[in-house]
Amino acid sequence: MLRTNTCGELRIEHVNTTVTLCGWVQRIKDLGGLTFIDLRDRYGITQLKLNIESDTALNQTVKGLAREFVLKVTGTVIERESKNKNNPTGEIEINVRNIEILNASITPPFTIEDETDGGDELRMKYRYLDLRRNNVRKNLELRHRMALETRNYLDKQKFIEVETPVLIKSTPEGARDFVVPSRMNKNQFYALPQSPQTFKQLLMVSGFDRYYQIVKCFRDEDLRADRQPEFTQIDCEMSFVDQEDILQTFEGLTRHLFKVVKGIDIATIERMTYADAMKFYGNDKPDTRFDMKLIELNEIVKGKTFKVFDEAQVVLAICAKGAAEYTRKQLDELTEWVKRPQLGATGLVYARHNADGVIKSSVDKFYNEEELKKWSEACRSQPGDLILVLAGAEEKTRKAAGELRLEMGNRLGLRDKNKFSALWVIDFPLLEWNEGDPNLPASLAGRWHAKHHPFTSPKPEDMDLLNTNPGAVRANAYDIVINGVEVGGGSIRIHNKNLQAKMFEVLGFSKEEAQKQFGFLMNAFEFGAPPHGGIAFGFDRLCSLFGGAESIRDFIAFPKNNSGRDVMIDSPAEISDEQLKELFIKTYN
Amino acid sequence: MLRTNTCGELRIEHVNTTVTLCGWVQRIKDLGGLTFIDLRDRYGITQLKLNIESDTALNQTVKGLAREFVLKVTGTVIERESKNKNNPTGEIEINVRNIEILNASITPPFTIEDETDGGDELRMKYRYLDLRRNNVRKNLELRHRMALETRNYLDKQKFIEVETPVLIKSTPEGARDFVVPSRMNKNQFYALPQSPQTFKQLLMVSGFDRYYQIVKCFRDEDLRADRQPEFTQIDCEMSFVDQEDILQTFEGLTRHLFKVVKGIDIATIERMTYADAMKFYGNDKPDTRFDMKLIELNEIVKGKTFKVFDEAQVVLAICAKGAAEYTRKQLDELTEWVKRPQLGATGLVYARHNADGVIKSSVDKFYNEEELKKWSEACRSQPGDLILVLAGAEEKTRKAAGELRLEMGNRLGLRDKNKFSALWVIDFPLLEWNEGDPNLPASLAGRWHAKHHPFTSPKPEDMDLLNTNPGAVRANAYDIVINGVEVGGGSIRIHNKNLQAKMFEVLGFSKEEAQKQFGFLMNAFEFGAPPHGGIAFGFDRLCSLFGGAESIRDFIAFPKNNSGRDVMIDSPAEISDEQLKELFIKTYN
Repeated sequence: MLRTNTCGELRIEHVNTTVTLCGWVQRIKDLGGLTFIDLRDRYGITQLKLNIESDTALNQTVKGLAREFVLKVTGTVIERESKNKNNPTGEIEINVRNIEILNASITPPFTIEDETDGGDELRMKYRYLDLRRNNVRKNLELRHRMALETRNYLDKQKFIEVETPVLIKSTPEGARDFVVPSRMNKNQFYALPQSPQTFKQLLMVSGFDRYYQIVKCFRDEDLRADRQPEFTQIDCEMSFVDQEDILQTFEGLTRHLFKVVKGIDIATIERMTYADAMKFYGNDKPDTRFDMKLIELNEIVKGKTFKVFDEAQVVLAICAKGAAEYTRKQLDELTEWVKRPQLGATGLVYARHNADGVIKSSVDKFYNEEELKKWSEACRSQPGDLILVLAGAEEKTRKAAGELRLEMGNRLGLRDKNKFSALWVIDFPLLEWNEGDPNLPASLAGRWHAKHHPFTSPKPEDMDLLNTNPGAVRANAYDIVINGVEVGGGSIRIHNKNLQAKMFEVLGFSKEEAQKQFGFLMNAFEFGAPPHGGIAFGFDRLCSLFGGAESIRDFIAFPKNNSGRDVMIDSPAEISDEQLKELFIKTYN
Repeated sequence: MLRTNTCGELRIEHVNTTVTLCGWVQRIKDLGGLTFIDLRDRYGITQLKLNIESDTALNQTVKGLAREFVLKVTGTVIERESKNKNNPTGEIEINVRNIEILNASITPPFTIEDETDGGDELRMKYRYLDLRRNNVRKNLELRHRMALETRNYLDKQKFIEVETPVLIKSTPEGARDFVVPSRMNKNQFYALPQSPQTFKQLLMVSGFDRYYQIVKCFRDEDLRADRQPEFTQIDCEMSFVDQEDILQTFEGLTRHLFKVVKGIDIATIERMTYADAMKFYGNDKPDTRFDMKLIELNEIVKGKTFKVFDEAQVVLAICAKGAAEYTRKQLDELTEWVKRPQLGATGLVYARHNADGVIKSSVDKFYNEEELKKWSEACRSQPGDLILVLAGAEEKTRKAAGELRLEMGNRLGLRDKNKFSALWVIDFPLLEWNEGDPNLPASLAGRWHAKHHPFTSPKPEDMDLLNTNPGAVRANAYDIVINGVEVGGGSIRIHNKNLQAKMFEVLGFSKEEAQKQFGFLMNAFEFGAPPHGGIAFGFDRLCSLFGGAESIRDFIAFPKNNSGRDVMIDSPAEISDEQLKELFIKTYN
């Protein structure tokens, strides 16, 4: 080792020991005859004291130093005169005898500090410097810890990690695949997996009983913020279980991670049906850190000559605790906010439940005090609260009210990132009608789509509806939602060949297509497939949630930008004609 | 849970408990009124006893059963009359009250037994059935254990697992890349990583200090037996270390894996220079489970009118202990063996050191007893030993002698797969001359190639030779070899921008090419790169070695065949015109 110690481990008890440290120059303080340098490595920062007056060689070297130089220094640990209690090594410093420059550094394009002056673009281009920053590195240390603890927990539960292939086959279901031309199999292509779904089901057919994998998956989608073309899943599957077993097992994993990584005992994870989530939160991933449920006012507000409410399919209120003092300006701003195209509400009605108990609304013309009292009763408002009301078409209004709820949660500080509320959303619909999404291949438009995926089993009691009212069929499917973020989801799978074939039929596959794409799976079901089910957690998102961050990007070592580019290595890039020729492909404009 | 217990856990102390088991029918023994079924799951086999005479419903169900049906059975644990000591559950059986068929099975195309009647092709096509076989599943359980123990060991050594990207950029160095057309960046391609080499070095520049990753890598090479287009590495890198630190750290890992996975304390891992390995074993990955070194006889045998030896660059002997009794037929067979084109020896000379002490050779015409005694002394042969001699051009003969040594090791039973001998081979040459390999793109032919890769540092004492005699420059590079299998290799890296630029120049890169391909790395070196080095283990091979198998294929859940095809899912396959169009590529014949 080039060093005897790291920059994070020396303490007062090491005083008088001779040590050698290696690290980067974080800061140089020149006090004339005395120079102090903060030397940084992954483990911490140690202060170096250099008496350059008495040592001309040292003086010479020190004069040439700058930020981010890599040093190897030898000296004696001494007690510091002015101690720094914020730094674990703050009681000592190194009286440096010898200094060796292991590598120089030109001036970095941004400061290597928690709060840097570098913009996003620059930090991505010099990601290797961005990763030097304490907070970014800590994110990846957290990720490492999460992965290791996940593995050890699942291993104890008898799960086996099995690596499934990355070079697989393109299937029309789901999002768009990345494809890989095969040189040895001319004009044929591999695809990168969007998930190891079929392989993990085959492992259940193989009797592996409990499988997991922390695995890279790939989707060639138009990228929104916080979507990456390659992402990581904790992918799991179990045999001989029903839904309850899976919820229990992965509540266990979630609880374990919170406990060992964050030191938090989370409450029992409640369950909520998809129907209730939509009804009370306008959202299939409710943020349950705060209440403020959606309240239907239809029966109370209709027939009072207020046309907007009378003509609306649904009138929905939320009660924002303690917001009665909202100014007119704030309310106008909120109104503009709900009218944005993303939400598309036509307006916002409010009622202030003032501190003196009087309720005043923006529609006093139509509703007298007695009627507003009914609003208050329905909303359980207290003096000081603000009732906000949206009206319109069912689906759109529910969604908008859900968004307004989240926005008010933000404004009222109810979404503390250090507070965690987890929830199982269950009883998802099996299918959803898709009118045609410009992001999906045309072949996938205008038909029933699997809400989870085509391997999810319908609830036995809803099975008859599959022919008569497919949209009403509920699935044995579940999501785990934490703080309004869907961190995982799964289902009990179909393990019967005929039901799987039926499912493909409902999804609009011809028999031939189904056989061509998923024949191997349906064949496998002929040889004794066990009942099975599973779940996958979005690992990037889980890490960012644990790290208290909004974006997954800083929990990925080398992320891509919104055009799918890695600006650091400048990828993707053109390849040689020779490479194209070997693959028997041509590019064109 | 559909079961109360697994098929592997019931013992004599469970007698009289009511249990429910799930599993597959391994075997049905019909003894008239009594039927016995072996029920199998991942954890073991439990015998079911079905009194079908007294229970007509049960009788009905049992009559319909066949191998590989999936059952759920409930009954009472009872003591067995004839116990089976070879099975951990062999003292008990289940007196079955109730049986439910969870899924039927058609007859599998081969038997689900340790020794199956299925050929390779069939087993690959129905891999999900092959994976049901005990021995195949055990291989993957071993792999899981190895991965988990590797992670926990490295975590304790402060290594952080960091996921590096899968969608990267194609580089001309090394083997052929798999490429991925980018839809969002027209006419540009990602490449799949052959290793995370540059990324792990960037992580060192970032100050991560100790990195590892168990990671999929990809090479589009013509496949030989035991090569897979996607394979897994244990990839590691450390900062502020020299070669000795890396050897120590990963000797530690190797020792740990042998201890916890195999229960074996391996000896200290010896070091051998590349030069010595070639000299004494004719091979840079010597199998050191047995001795039988190559002995140079030049000085002893030349000038005795035997033209073959006189004209040879080198005359090499091995001494096969106890093989003096080899018959003429066996020796003829060996002679044919060395004359095969792969080895290309012109013939084989032998000398029997008979039990009575007399030495008789196949070239007695040229060498009298006294001279043969010198052979014996050089080879340290004992009565009963057989000396085998090859002669010819240096490199070819050394290689052939090395192969002959391995063959004799096999024939004499010296290569016990349950014995393990590990070795560090060090001081590899930095470069090797490549005349042009038909498997490599033409641009890579006829020039110096990096023996490890272009980031490996030359030994400082050999640095001057880089201009004058590049082939003589030794590298700070090392391989770990176990039982003649190279299971890992690595090097101390270049961390100086100018030296890296020089290295690219020696490798025939123009400045522009080097900048275009590896500019990001050389730029990173400008910002304070620490001295660093690392290693990568071939994880598939390491697992197969631990499992005592020759082939890696059965340590991979879903391997590809020699044409790079997954015959189970029938991949690669054609993709739709729509997909091609979106990518702006055309295929042609």
